[in-house]
Amino acid sequence: MGELATLFGPKRVAVVGATDREGSVGRAITANLLADFEGDVVAVNPTKDEVLGLESHDSVGAVPDVDVAVVVVPPPIVLDAIREAAEAGIRDVVVITAGFGESGSEGARRERELRELAAEYDLNVVGPNSLGIMNTSVGLNATFGPENAQEGSISFMSQSGAFVTAVVDWANDRNLGFHNVVSLGNKAVLDESDFVREWGEDPDTDVILGYLEDVVDGRAFVESAREVSTDTPIVVVKSGRTEAGASAAASHTGAIAGSEEAYEAALDQAGVLRVDTVQDLFDFGSILAGQPLPERDGVAIVTNAGGPGVMTTDAVGDSDLSLASFSDDTVERFQDALPDEANVYNPVDIIGDAPVERFEEALDIALADPNVGAAVVLACPTATLSYEDLADSVVDLQAEYETPVAATLMGGSSARDANERLSRAGIPTYFDPARAVRSLDALREYREISRREYTEPETFDVDREAAREILESAARRDTNRLGVEAMGLLDAYGIPTPDGEIVDARADAVEAAERIVGASGEGDGDDADDDGDGEVVMKIVSPDILHKSDIGGVAVGVPPEEVGDTYEDLVTRARSYQPDATILGVQVQEMVDLDSGVETIAGMNRDPQFGPLVLFGLGGIFVEVLEDTTLRLAPVSEASAREMIDEIDAAPLLRGARGRDPVDEGSVVETIQRLSQLVTDFPAIVELDINPLVATPDGAQAVDVRLTIDQEQL
Amino acid sequence: MGELATLFGPKRVAVVGATDREGSVGRAITANLLADFEGDVVAVNPTKDEVLGLESHDSVGAVPDVDVAVVVVPPPIVLDAIREAAEAGIRDVVVITAGFGESGSEGARRERELRELAAEYDLNVVGPNSLGIMNTSVGLNATFGPENAQEGSISFMSQSGAFVTAVVDWANDRNLGFHNVVSLGNKAVLDESDFVREWGEDPDTDVILGYLEDVVDGRAFVESAREVSTDTPIVVVKSGRTEAGASAAASHTGAIAGSEEAYEAALDQAGVLRVDTVQDLFDFGSILAGQPLPERDGVAIVTNAGGPGVMTTDAVGDSDLSLASFSDDTVERFQDALPDEANVYNPVDIIGDAPVERFEEALDIALADPNVGAAVVLACPTATLSYEDLADSVVDLQAEYETPVAATLMGGSSARDANERLSRAGIPTYFDPARAVRSLDALREYREISRREYTEPETFDVDREAAREILESAARRDTNRLGVEAMGLLDAYGIPTPDGEIVDARADAVEAAERIVGASGEGDGDDADDDGDGEVVMKIVSPDILHKSDIGGVAVGVPPEEVGDTYEDLVTRARSYQPDATILGVQVQEMVDLDSGVETIAGMNRDPQFGPLVLFGLGGIFVEVLEDTTLRLAPVSEASAREMIDEIDAAPLLRGARGRDPVDEGSVVETIQRLSQLVTDFPAIVELDINPLVATPDGAQAVDVRLTIDQEQL
Repeated sequence: MGELATLFGPKRVAVVGATDREGSVGRAITANLLADFEGDVVAVNPTKDEVLGLESHDSVGAVPDVDVAVVVVPPPIVLDAIREAAEAGIRDVVVITAGFGESGSEGARRERELRELAAEYDLNVVGPNSLGIMNTSVGLNATFGPENAQEGSISFMSQSGAFVTAVVDWANDRNLGFHNVVSLGNKAVLDESDFVREWGEDPDTDVILGYLEDVVDGRAFVESAREVSTDTPIVVVKSGRTEAGASAAASHTGAIAGSEEAYEAALDQAGVLRVDTVQDLFDFGSILAGQPLPERDGVAIVTNAGGPGVMTTDAVGDSDLSLASFSDDTVERFQDALPDEANVYNPVDIIGDAPVERFEEALDIALADPNVGAAVVLACPTATLSYEDLADSVVDLQAEYETPVAATLMGGSSARDANERLSRAGIPTYFDPARAVRSLDALREYREISRREYTEPETFDVDREAAREILESAARRDTNRLGVEAMGLLDAYGIPTPDGEIVDARADAVEAAERIVGASGEGDGDDADDDGDGEVVMKIVSPDILHKSDIGGVAVGVPPEEVGDTYEDLVTRARSYQPDATILGVQVQEMVDLDSGVETIAGMNRDPQFGPLVLFGLGGIFVEVLEDTTLRLAPVSEASAREMIDEIDAAPLLRGARGRDPVDEGSVVETIQRLSQLVTDFPAIVELDINPLVATPDGAQAVDVRLTIDQEQL
Repeated sequence: MGELATLFGPKRVAVVGATDREGSVGRAITANLLADFEGDVVAVNPTKDEVLGLESHDSVGAVPDVDVAVVVVPPPIVLDAIREAAEAGIRDVVVITAGFGESGSEGARRERELRELAAEYDLNVVGPNSLGIMNTSVGLNATFGPENAQEGSISFMSQSGAFVTAVVDWANDRNLGFHNVVSLGNKAVLDESDFVREWGEDPDTDVILGYLEDVVDGRAFVESAREVSTDTPIVVVKSGRTEAGASAAASHTGAIAGSEEAYEAALDQAGVLRVDTVQDLFDFGSILAGQPLPERDGVAIVTNAGGPGVMTTDAVGDSDLSLASFSDDTVERFQDALPDEANVYNPVDIIGDAPVERFEEALDIALADPNVGAAVVLACPTATLSYEDLADSVVDLQAEYETPVAATLMGGSSARDANERLSRAGIPTYFDPARAVRSLDALREYREISRREYTEPETFDVDREAAREILESAARRDTNRLGVEAMGLLDAYGIPTPDGEIVDARADAVEAAERIVGASGEGDGDDADDDGDGEVVMKIVSPDILHKSDIGGVAVGVPPEEVGDTYEDLVTRARSYQPDATILGVQVQEMVDLDSGVETIAGMNRDPQFGPLVLFGLGGIFVEVLEDTTLRLAPVSEASAREMIDEIDAAPLLRGARGRDPVDEGSVVETIQRLSQLVTDFPAIVELDINPLVATPDGAQAVDVRLTIDQEQL
């Protein structure tokens, strides 16, 4: 157990504000504590002599050795009550009282003071505005909810107290137990990262579930969760995913809006299984708590009903699992054991007249197959089959093979008892076989997370000072937006760019073009026959002109003899377009062969909650229309950069689809990593796009760049 | 009622093969019929005197006026029994007996004979290999399942008998009723199309649900379903969606494999709500049976719990519904009615201490708002709220406003009674609010289907004879694959193609190029400055060379002076690549400006089950990699062709994304329609691809074509 060991495992709990007034929160908490708690309960209320049979004390300091103070006094005296508890040596406090950050400026001030008080005395504070906490293993129910949870190995935190009451009521009905339950309230002091860390060290917690509307400290959460999630699965509903949902969350708990894309990337990198619905949260939580992880992806389906078998097979097809292909030996064993009409291949159809013995034998054979990593037991009610006996057989075989099993005993009342037997043994049951498969697939997904190895992102040798100088010179010009004039930033960080330079005179342009063409001719002699040999690209360079192409500020394929005139032309166009524009010059750039390459984009934006996010995707006009992009929190390791390429739909284009030469993927991967290092090194870079990053068989080249900086951060 | 009125509403039913043998199917059916059926039950079994208290007759002809014969005799005497029934004037037969098409060649022969017998006597035959049929309104349970269904307005057909027993058991537990239930069995005579038609005419059926593994006659099903679905919703699980699922279906019922893409397009065009899971099938079926359709898309959420309110809002964001924006008047009414801490905007949070009266008032105000088309009532259990009273209020208000409502009273046992009250009144309830929203969205989707107007596809004036001549000349050459030599097919059907001709001599090539360039110069004078003016494209024409580019058989941008040499060159290359290839000549074609256009693809393939399917999508290398395509069964109307363009992800590229000129969409639409007419007119065309179909602001142009023909069909 970690730093919150006392909070969840107290010997003595004081209710500050205990009362016996009917319908009051103070009474509900006191009664809930008195019901099952193995330790002492102390009532504190100076206006009472006795509360529900307990002596009532004037002050929390009046009783020695109180471990946890649960505070339910009115808002104006909460801080005094906590200070008194802290002075008495109490370090763990649950603040039930509302009327803090969630309600106006007075409340916000009170919450700030609460935070300061906690820092002063080094307090662990849950809430304020919390329903309370539970620890079923010591009978601790310090909430004002109507029901206590059953014992189990799931620990659950929720940013909604009402949701806690609903979940506990529902879970009790389904024999689903919890170890700890926390209503997070306003998260003034303790937040999701603290509980993730705590439960990660807690041997009684097998699965962590969360309902979150925001994350207080994005980076801290990712770090804690990443460490915990390889050993303990974390499943989270992060609501406010949609625009409407985010605005509802803001009005509900004042949730801070990190972008949905950032949450998506962050939770994924943290190894959190993110789900969208309450059903998935508890389906996934239950199976992770009750079943082992599958060692392989093949699923065996054993059924007495062909039609539902087909539906289950479709569900496997929809998942990242596969239908197990049985060994010859297994098929033979099925042939010996089953009637002629049976299907001895997967899904195994043991036919409608199957008694429980046939089901048991078939499941035994299936689980023994070396290709089977998980099984679905799927039955329809028949006159020859006892669901209860089937449940017992399944429980025994699952325990024998230690292979994950999910069950679908279809039906209503006829399946109730059997389903209870199964779920008490940790085998999840569903009416819809698609949910059974989906849950098994969650086991597979978590298996992959549990095998993740975190590699520190590589640090490349770069010229950080040169990069700083470019950013500072932009700041000196008092400009926040940079274009091709910032190509030097990329050079400084070793990101390949086409040969090019920025000139501010006609003669220099001609000279630059000659040098560039000469150099590329030398370096790459076999290009001599190509079209466009000797030609360059020229672009106007001005911080005030963002869309260069739109004003005719870009000339492609300029032959040597036209470089001088084109220089004049570009400058004239820019001046006439915007007479007061600062014109830094014209960039003369080597031609990049787009025909053999694929236009991609590599970029970054900075999320208020999670910091720099690196983007990679298909470039050109497809970026906007098809949005084939993927994101990672920086810093990005080599493995992550490779995954980013895997994730875009257009990945086959980079890998030689349609007889093209595959591009140099390593060069793209390194560019993503170097970009990640650049934006991590300079918090002043708020946004950056390399568009296009042309990926060719000979390497990646950053052809154009655009960025926004925040001078304050320099 | 339609042609099957007697089948579902008989006065007298005979069980041919009735018996009292324990555990037999004959006994189960006789007992089920005796349990609730309002009409007479007749037992037929020459080896018995009495069966379950009924006099047993030697022959079905021995009792007059039998309406339906349910046949459970052994396979070898099924046909005799049916003939006897037919001779006695019975027209409606349910064949329970298995051992037909599903089991070997003997069975297949027997099934063919059954079909012939049915045709001879004009019989309505359900099965064989069926669990039987039910009609709850006359207490008819002619199945051997363990339970009879409750009365309701859903009619359900299933290609799996086991699934019927599971569903009835489950539905009885949830007070979900059925009107008719049919286990389709092998569908030797009556199939899904017959029951769709029947139930479409049946005033007691509000919703049609189906579990199907295949469709016997694709086109017939689409036609029946399209007619029925505007008045009666049809919700179907068509299993075998995935490759694994399809092969499982084939081994289960010998389902014929139409392609998944064809099913998807066909069910959509038929107005069928296709679902993938058992849960969606019954969620959607229940709400369609119990609630009216929403008149608008705005949803009001009324809740006593903020967190679940946020999750519900996310679910609305995921759907095609929207969060209703309340009128000023509504907001004022909420402000007057609710406490200060309440959220008077959507989702309406009436705060955790809300009693039922506050819930009722808030729901009343929400339902009265002119922007609200549907409502979600969302509650967490609290000390101040009675779920039962809330249920009663919701039932009353829903009835008063006739606006669809779905409920999520979260919790387990505490919500059970309330949920029962709601579901008995047709208001669906779910623990997970996402399901409530998903179900309301299904109402919206069906509303759109109910408003569909079918328009006959347009018939264009085309040169059918010219097209036939091209196909026949290919057949005379004994070739099945055609390339550019078939451009004339497109011309004959008025699909725009670039100017071009096929020549078989060097001099003709030069002449053709001169003519083409001259014509395009004349017609489009302002192109004179363009690059490529005067150039042509040249392609080898050979039915034996499919991938022309791969062997250097295509030359783009050939200037006038090189046309002659290029002709020789192309022919030489083709000969050296494949000496025995039939070379029809060289196509000389006008250059099409790809820069201002978007490469799309329009094509067709013929599905074994559904006939010609027309495809449209993004072309070029993206066809293979991004698969951004959509399909329709031919013939395709103008409205459908427009929808096809809407459906591809790249549609914005055609509509002027990134400052491009929008392409001539009308020309693309007409090309799709004309292609549809071509492939409908000529069943000999098995496959056809126009790739690329270049869409430009000036119109669409079919630049290349490839097709496969079946000479037998000419």
